[in-house]
Amino acid sequence: MGSLEHVVTFRVRYSETDQMGTYYNSRPLEWFEWGRTELMRAAGLPYTEIEARGLRLPLIEAHLEYGGKARYDDELRMTSRAAFCGKARVRFEVEIVQAGNGAPVVKGYTVHAVVDEAGKPVRAPEWLVERLSTIPT
Amino acid sequence: MGSLEHVVTFRVRYSETDQMGTYYNSRPLEWFEWGRTELMRAAGLPYTEIEARGLRLPLIEAHLEYGGKARYDDELRMTSRAAFCGKARVRFEVEIVQAGNGAPVVKGYTVHAVVDEAGKPVRAPEWLVERLSTIPT
Amino acid sequence: MGSLEHVVTFRVRYSETDQMGTYYNSRPLEWFEWGRTELMRAAGLPYTEIEARGLRLPLIEAHLEYGGKARYDDELRMTSRAAFCGKARVRFEVEIVQAGNGAPVVKGYTVHAVVDEAGKPVRAPEWLVERLSTIPT
Amino acid sequence: MGSLEHVVTFRVRYSETDQMGTYYNSRPLEWFEWGRTELMRAAGLPYTEIEARGLRLPLIEAHLEYGGKARYDDELRMTSRAAFCGKARVRFEVEIVQAGNGAPVVKGYTVHAVVDEAGKPVRAPEWLVERLSTIPT
Repeated sequence: MGSLEHVVTFRVRYSETDQMGTYYNSRPLEWFEWGRTELMRAAGLPYTEIEARGLRLPLIEAHLEYGGKARYDDELRMTSRAAFCGKARVRFEVEIVQAGNGAPVVKGYTVHAVVDEAGKPVRAPEWLVERLSTIPT
Repeated sequence: MGSLEHVVTFRVRYSETDQMGTYYNSRPLEWFEWGRTELMRAAGLPYTEIEARGLRLPLIEAHLEYGGKARYDDELRMTSRAAFCGKARVRFEVEIVQAGNGAPVVKGYTVHAVVDEAGKPVRAPEWLVERLSTIPT
Repeated sequence: MGSLEHVVTFRVRYSETDQMGTYYNSRPLEWFEWGRTELMRAAGLPYTEIEARGLRLPLIEAHLEYGGKARYDDELRMTSRAAFCGKARVRFEVEIVQAGNGAPVVKGYTVHAVVDEAGKPVRAPEWLVERLSTIPT
Repeated sequence: MGSLEHVVTFRVRYSETDQMGTYYNSRPLEWFEWGRTELMRAAGLPYTEIEARGLRLPLIEAHLEYGGKARYDDELRMTSRAAFCGKARVRFEVEIVQAGNGAPVVKGYTVHAVVDEAGKPVRAPEWLVERLSTIPT
């Protein structure tokens, strides 16, 4: 099974810092979500289109390992990879580092169910599997 | 026209601080919303019931004046007041101070339209006007 | 080694929902942090006092399993437990359920380093170990 | 007195929506802050440098007028303008519209004090006034 990879860069916003002077610990989950959005757009399958086709990909599991500080306005580089685990779950692996020197900031993964609009788990349709598995690993 | 008042106390969360060591400037709008929720519950009209009856109260205007710092774990006291401005708008006035000594933290107001589920402005029904105007000022 | 447990109840705020109509997936990390704050206060050792004594407990790992929906204004019950893993790390286990019927919402854990003000890892002092390990399991 | 203007485009993140299906009402204050950051960088005076020179620009007032919906992944265009009001206050005016058709989303302003590291108000130094006032209006 192949996987799909996408890279974005961004800066830490003031609103994302806390009084310790680094990013607040829940912020990476927002960054991960934005990374998924851009990865799926790059794959030719915007998440809005997935929703328009009647599917949702709610999180069922998330894991984060905090590796280093990132201060206000630091430029970060986020790499997101998507892969299927079975036919009913999608897994995204994410790594965020300082854009300048590659120093680790945070990495982790999210696991998503494939459900219909009523929230019922469904087998991932072919168009979804194909789009998210197009690059051999 | 009367108005309705409600007081709650709460503590600043770590997630609400920023690197300046005080609450981040967008957080009061979340606190204001929670104050409205509790004011309406105290008035016997939970916002969930307003939604169940087919109405929404989206913000159309907000104003904030930042009066002083509030650090992590500081206990704050928020006073919310509701009043109608005409029959199609509700206005909430909010004041947040340090619970211990009354030192100013932030105050402001929000103005809300009364709309139906499709987002169309409607005249506020009697049950809404009555509930939010029960205390003479 | 004993552990320490604390229970709080709270309601989902409007600001914590997303367009799927349930809590946004990063919000539990803010709830977890608030649960830790209240657990440590209940243990007689507010986090502000830990900071005043020159220590910080930054996150180094977090894990979340999303078990069910929680809508705006739903009342939730969060149980937090603290325990040491070795002398330089604190681990909090958290479980959040619907207060009414105990239906699962989200559970997980966070692992924290013990560091000084400069961010250097240190062995947890006795006063910290004692306070967070007072109830036999 | 001149003013300075800067334009950025961005997309609404999933984390920024609420159950009404549009952006949550506190999010524009985070967008405004990011717009200020980019405006000051474009002016050759990153906010990190202002902080390094010992100044802070805390908010003392904010005003928002919500003009229209913006859904997940909608592309928005934000125009920020800076101008001094006297020598001790900076005012930013911001307007956010749908990038595609210019439909209004939200507009407002923020007013900032000029203070030193201890939080004491100070007269804005020449290098700050010059940088933020370089375009005649």
